[in-house]
Amino acid sequence: MPNSAYQLLEIVGTSPVSSDDAIRSGIEKATLMHHALDWFQVTETRGQIREGKVTQFRVIMKVSTRLDRP
Amino acid sequence: MPNSAYQLLEIVGTSPVSSDDAIRSGIEKATLMHHALDWFQVTETRGQIREGKVTQFRVIMKVSTRLDRP
Amino acid sequence: MPNSAYQLLEIVGTSPVSSDDAIRSGIEKATLMHHALDWFQVTETRGQIREGKVTQFRVIMKVSTRLDRP
Amino acid sequence: MPNSAYQLLEIVGTSPVSSDDAIRSGIEKATLMHHALDWFQVTETRGQIREGKVTQFRVIMKVSTRLDRP
Amino acid sequence: MPNSAYQLLEIVGTSPVSSDDAIRSGIEKATLMHHALDWFQVTETRGQIREGKVTQFRVIMKVSTRLDRP
Amino acid sequence: MPNSAYQLLEIVGTSPVSSDDAIRSGIEKATLMHHALDWFQVTETRGQIREGKVTQFRVIMKVSTRLDRP
Amino acid sequence: MPNSAYQLLEIVGTSPVSSDDAIRSGIEKATLMHHALDWFQVTETRGQIREGKVTQFRVIMKVSTRLDRP
Amino acid sequence: MPNSAYQLLEIVGTSPVSSDDAIRSGIEKATLMHHALDWFQVTETRGQIREGKVTQFRVIMKVSTRLDRP
Amino acid sequence: MPNSAYQLLEIVGTSPVSSDDAIRSGIEKATLMHHALDWFQVTETRGQIREGKVTQFRVIMKVSTRLDRP
Amino acid sequence: MPNSAYQLLEIVGTSPVSSDDAIRSGIEKATLMHHALDWFQVTETRGQIREGKVTQFRVIMKVSTRLDRP
Amino acid sequence: MPNSAYQLLEIVGTSPVSSDDAIRSGIEKATLMHHALDWFQVTETRGQIREGKVTQFRVIMKVSTRLDRP
Amino acid sequence: MPNSAYQLLEIVGTSPVSSDDAIRSGIEKATLMHHALDWFQVTETRGQIREGKVTQFRVIMKVSTRLDRP
Repeated sequence: MPNSAYQLLEIVGTSPVSSDDAIRSGIEKATLMHHALDWFQVTETRGQIREGKVTQFRVIMKVSTRLDRP
Repeated sequence: MPNSAYQLLEIVGTSPVSSDDAIRSGIEKATLMHHALDWFQVTETRGQIREGKVTQFRVIMKVSTRLDRP
Repeated sequence: MPNSAYQLLEIVGTSPVSSDDAIRSGIEKATLMHHALDWFQVTETRGQIREGKVTQFRVIMKVSTRLDRP
Repeated sequence: MPNSAYQLLEIVGTSPVSSDDAIRSGIEKATLMHHALDWFQVTETRGQIREGKVTQFRVIMKVSTRLDRP
Repeated sequence: MPNSAYQLLEIVGTSPVSSDDAIRSGIEKATLMHHALDWFQVTETRGQIREGKVTQFRVIMKVSTRLDRP
Repeated sequence: MPNSAYQLLEIVGTSPVSSDDAIRSGIEKATLMHHALDWFQVTETRGQIREGKVTQFRVIMKVSTRLDRP
Repeated sequence: MPNSAYQLLEIVGTSPVSSDDAIRSGIEKATLMHHALDWFQVTETRGQIREGKVTQFRVIMKVSTRLDRP
Repeated sequence: MPNSAYQLLEIVGTSPVSSDDAIRSGIEKATLMHHALDWFQVTETRGQIREGKVTQFRVIMKVSTRLDRP
Repeated sequence: MPNSAYQLLEIVGTSPVSSDDAIRSGIEKATLMHHALDWFQVTETRGQIREGKVTQFRVIMKVSTRLDRP
Repeated sequence: MPNSAYQLLEIVGTSPVSSDDAIRSGIEKATLMHHALDWFQVTETRGQIREGKVTQFRVIMKVSTRLDRP
Repeated sequence: MPNSAYQLLEIVGTSPVSSDDAIRSGIEKATLMHHALDWFQVTETRGQIREGKVTQFRVIMKVSTRLDRP
Repeated sequence: MPNSAYQLLEIVGTSPVSSDDAIRSGIEKATLMHHALDWFQVTETRGQIREGKVTQFRVIMKVSTRLDRP
């Protein structure tokens, strides 16, 4: 079995609905541009407030993609 | 355009329902006492356990308010 | 009142549904083996991705149990 | 039971006597200006040296106060 | 000499000119609302980019104010 | 000399008297359940406040025990 | 409004003149290869010394770019 | 598929030979007392020096074990 | 001398043999896709355990590449 | 007034009595070899355990000394 | 080529003018006492405030010097 | 038994061979200039890359020396 290698990308997903939805949304968008993502790790949870309400969750996360995929 | 200035407040929101609800609840209560909050950043997620069940989520977060608002 | 003492355990809960559900699931399983858990603190939120979708949330947390309980 | 909310304040207590005394002194002074403090967490212990002797302990700590108390 | 006590405030200064100017601007605005600031510590340096140029520096810093000043 | 191995446990000691007493109290209680503790490292110092007074120090620490002791 | 997504890139800008100039220089070079950068956050400030003089400032920063821009 | 749960243990492996050997040694000893370890993460690398030579490597690591295994 | 600029990439190298071999393997694979890497910095050392043996070392590291190379 | 410069030294004080005494002891010994120490900052509190009792406190701290003193 | 070795010193530079000037000033003073400094890394930026103005920047940095230079 | 005191030095060892060899090399060189080193702790592992190969490991570590040795 050859040694695998991976690259970690740091992405930001956003959602007006929930922090989990921001995770899912960011990963779905990243999948369109980077192949074969296999795990994520949240590094920060932020968000926007307007008129005393949370209007957007922004979750920053690292995602792993194969570096050597053909 | 004059330079703006902000103050960051660290608050704790709580909820028996979910961690996102604890975020929303803390921000709504902070809005009653501090004007014009515009973003938040989660610094810690904790909670209370009773009889093996999560009975309260406690989310600590920083929120930003205008320092120089008239 | 005698001085109490506690031990902190680091556990990982998992769920295909949500990060809060992963917290609840981990605590319920830990309760089967460790008595009298009274609070938790999230230390990391990770997860598994398959075909561009989040298939599992994995939440690492510290939980507190009484060290000196009879 | 309504959801409670808290604000964390970062204060510095000082004492020529001991680091625990600096904690107690800071909390007693903070109590004069902020109501209902219920816990503290030390974030840094520093101090002043003169002629090779510790002349002042300075303890930085976060303290929690009710945000929504009437 | 009675024990002094201090409160640390976290503020954000901004400037289109430089990061040092953002520090100075934030402190000058904070002085209008909080008395007797005596030191600051930078905790984060961020900024805004438009058309490939830095249009605003934002410096987050902690500043110390006397807690017990009459 | 065979290679030794150790396990680190994270415990919380409490005391109404002082933070050092909380360290000592936690270690004495942990000794009743884990053998041969040989060092500790403080990871956090917290405490409880009631009526503006510190009523309990809570010190979180890691302690080391032999993993392979017969 | 659809959910936006972003990617964070970590870049290093250099300058013999000043740390702010290193920030500006890095961002201008990154703009040539990555579109629509909208904010930066400094993660480290380093530099080179020769003959007791600072000959180069090196500022490491994260910059944000749209992940899903057409 | 039921939700799995894990416990993280923090252990210290030692070796006079190399840091990788300290990792292997600690894991082999931990396996005698905890079943089904599946991954490790190094948290600290230390060691002992005598007469200017490294006489022992000590690697602290977290290891994961199934919490709910029958 | 014009100001240089760099981009930091976070990669993961793996090896069944040793942690240094995982570093070398990751860098050799990254070189196939990114030109002119000039330094690395380890950010995490992890690995896989099977039957009480380390079967794979996984080293996460940042590597630096020229941003403005023609 | 010319610009002052300082060097920070990291020292370890020990005491069988208390953590504050370990601070004082380390500073008194450091004063014998380094002149004009003016402040300290605790970076770690550790200690030795024998037979379930704390037999030594070890406090690691940074101390500041004038770099340019004649 | 023999293996080189270095020592890192932590120094504090000060300036009433700017944070970059505090870096330069500290390095120039350190050069009088330590030979062959070749790089620096900022670890903290602080400063003094008087009457609402920044009167001194204090930059803490690590600098590298050859350990084995004849 | 009088209270001992120690000083921690931060050094960098280098080696073209391995990270453990960089540790050993740095400690052997530091021993020529500082007496009685008794332990080390790795704080960072870096290295140099040329033509896609690791040409030098650089390990930064803290080492402890007696402060009060005659």
